[in-house]
Amino acid sequence: MHIEVINTGSELLLGTTQNTHGGWLGRELFRLGLRIARQVTVPDGEAIESALAESVKRSDIVIVTGGLGPTSDDVTREACAKVTGAELIEDEAALRCIEQFFAIRNKIMAPDNRKQAEVPVGADVLTNKNGTAPGIYLPARINQLHPCGIFLLPGPPRELYPLFFDEVEPRLRALAGVQSNQIMHEMKFTGVGESDFHQAIDAQLATIPGLEVGYCARIAEVDLRLIGDEEACMKGRAIAFEAFAEYLINENGASLEATVVDKLRSSNLTLALAESCTGGLISSRITDVPGSSDVFMEGYITYANEAKIRTLGVNPESLEKFGAVSAEVAREMAVGALQRSGADLAASITGIAGPGGGSPEKPVGTAWIAVACKNQPTIVTCIFQPRDRNGFKKAASQAALDQIRRAIG
Amino acid sequence: MHIEVINTGSELLLGTTQNTHGGWLGRELFRLGLRIARQVTVPDGEAIESALAESVKRSDIVIVTGGLGPTSDDVTREACAKVTGAELIEDEAALRCIEQFFAIRNKIMAPDNRKQAEVPVGADVLTNKNGTAPGIYLPARINQLHPCGIFLLPGPPRELYPLFFDEVEPRLRALAGVQSNQIMHEMKFTGVGESDFHQAIDAQLATIPGLEVGYCARIAEVDLRLIGDEEACMKGRAIAFEAFAEYLINENGASLEATVVDKLRSSNLTLALAESCTGGLISSRITDVPGSSDVFMEGYITYANEAKIRTLGVNPESLEKFGAVSAEVAREMAVGALQRSGADLAASITGIAGPGGGSPEKPVGTAWIAVACKNQPTIVTCIFQPRDRNGFKKAASQAALDQIRRAIG
Repeated sequence: MHIEVINTGSELLLGTTQNTHGGWLGRELFRLGLRIARQVTVPDGEAIESALAESVKRSDIVIVTGGLGPTSDDVTREACAKVTGAELIEDEAALRCIEQFFAIRNKIMAPDNRKQAEVPVGADVLTNKNGTAPGIYLPARINQLHPCGIFLLPGPPRELYPLFFDEVEPRLRALAGVQSNQIMHEMKFTGVGESDFHQAIDAQLATIPGLEVGYCARIAEVDLRLIGDEEACMKGRAIAFEAFAEYLINENGASLEATVVDKLRSSNLTLALAESCTGGLISSRITDVPGSSDVFMEGYITYANEAKIRTLGVNPESLEKFGAVSAEVAREMAVGALQRSGADLAASITGIAGPGGGSPEKPVGTAWIAVACKNQPTIVTCIFQPRDRNGFKKAASQAALDQIRRAIG
Repeated sequence: MHIEVINTGSELLLGTTQNTHGGWLGRELFRLGLRIARQVTVPDGEAIESALAESVKRSDIVIVTGGLGPTSDDVTREACAKVTGAELIEDEAALRCIEQFFAIRNKIMAPDNRKQAEVPVGADVLTNKNGTAPGIYLPARINQLHPCGIFLLPGPPRELYPLFFDEVEPRLRALAGVQSNQIMHEMKFTGVGESDFHQAIDAQLATIPGLEVGYCARIAEVDLRLIGDEEACMKGRAIAFEAFAEYLINENGASLEATVVDKLRSSNLTLALAESCTGGLISSRITDVPGSSDVFMEGYITYANEAKIRTLGVNPESLEKFGAVSAEVAREMAVGALQRSGADLAASITGIAGPGGGSPEKPVGTAWIAVACKNQPTIVTCIFQPRDRNGFKKAASQAALDQIRRAIG
């Protein structure tokens, strides 16, 4: 079933409002075993007619959001009538719904709202409990020029979402016939690159019948997406796991920081952080996770050398002898944070974010990470991520969170 | 100039990744006085060719993001060659750039990456400093079937954004022939909402001939854009300044954190931060600014009560009597950070980020901010930003940075 989505709204193209409808519908449709073949955003006004005319030619179903309001630039109804050849008439039931919406709120319906009751002849009116604009479903048989089902849905999420569940989903299920046996399995990795996957497992994955493989590479993270029936996905999963288990963050779509907080909680461990080059980003990521206060004790952002000495007890001689960016200083920072905070586990990072501060021996992008636990040797690792300042901070925080993940075990 | 944007990536249509490129490009193009007429999202693979073929027929410029990687589903280059009739050839300079990208990282280029150096004959190669895939610009004259300029840009934001500023923006400015007497004046405000501007100054601004006014509202920030000749912009600027001078962050497009770092440096002041509810985000934003190590001494993320007592010297009785989220504890945190760090100025924040932890007296979204300076009374303010957790952290960090800005004077 070829499905296209058209989102209308000038604010989406000006970038003042983020278009979240496309992604939201994508997830909901996938749950029904369906996929969006194309998503189009057009400004308010006449552009919608040409976009809709093109989409119906290619599609079995077109879903349009927005443009059902009472003002002059809300022209989705009119565009649909023109494209399908179906006449618009005032629907009595729809009008009563709109009048009722105002009556419940002790308001009088403005004359402009009357046009929201106009519906193409033969269409289903989809009751909108949360706004004045009813949704509209035009079955394929009504569409005089191309047999394509068309849903017109309101733009505001609090109107769109319930209307989708109540009125759109049952119709899509009926149209799609038997429910799909397709599932999606996601695996999130760090410390390994997309090209490593291609070289190591792509050929093997390609031998599994009916398995669709997709990658999404982010900074210091690769998401592997397996789509197919359960058997195909589990075969693919086994191959990826065999090759890269060590680098696997999770298989539930959660962030690395949420995974770390989960692991700390289930291991009954508390965390402290000593950050230099990441400047608080690791702590900020940890505290992005709701409930992180259960496991996160304290963070120290010791940017200046004096702060490393005073707050974390780093030995001034180590700073002198090895420099602030060194394995020894990272180790002393982690041990200092462990002792000072009383946490069960402490991680530290010290490096050169750039653009200034690099040298031939220690170029921009170098960082040392240490993880200290009670009664255990401190683990120190080095990373090299020559990126712009923010990219470095992101990659370095990712590497540090991964070291914490590995230390928890 | 009719501009269309095509974003490629199955993850965007599956909803596993939010499509932020459309909105981002919309804002950047608006800054240049340009608008996106249509935005299209297609999955990886062959769908891009038909989408591109349709867009070039309607457009003067088409911007494509994504699909320039080394794998088999990265087919943007091939689609562009087919649609335009331009042959793909390996570009030596592009190949050297890719080889260099790996060499700098002490890695060997995989054979697959070689295809990233393939470029349509006659196209400009746009150097990508942050990834292996160079961008491509195909001038309209090269396009054998329809005269339409085509930009092919990498998908990852870290690669896309700098490439846009360095290579795309100058070409678009030249193509658009931006009138030499047109300027854009940007003013960035915080602590005041977009509707305040509408009510206070929109009618006045509308009387200035030839002035185009645009707003961009972000979390706890409003950007006012004035486009017109110098005289019109300065008249508009005077009106906005008169009404909202107190809330003005800057007029140079810089971030609030960069403005704070600048002000600290020019006032020869150093900063320390004590964060609870923002969990390191304020420190991270400060250290996003290159050269912030000149002014930023140290940050303390005292999430647990014990950390507030132990590290910042907060009085346990104050915590008992007033609670961790209180004016008194905020004050003691700032004073403690000032004394402990030896900085000239210290700011603190303590609040309830949610979703848990709220109460009728102190609902989620409440935070106290204190700013302490040597030999000066500590200033304490309260904010209320009931948002989701990340929105709260962003708004609270914004408010704290603004208090620091005001304290520097």
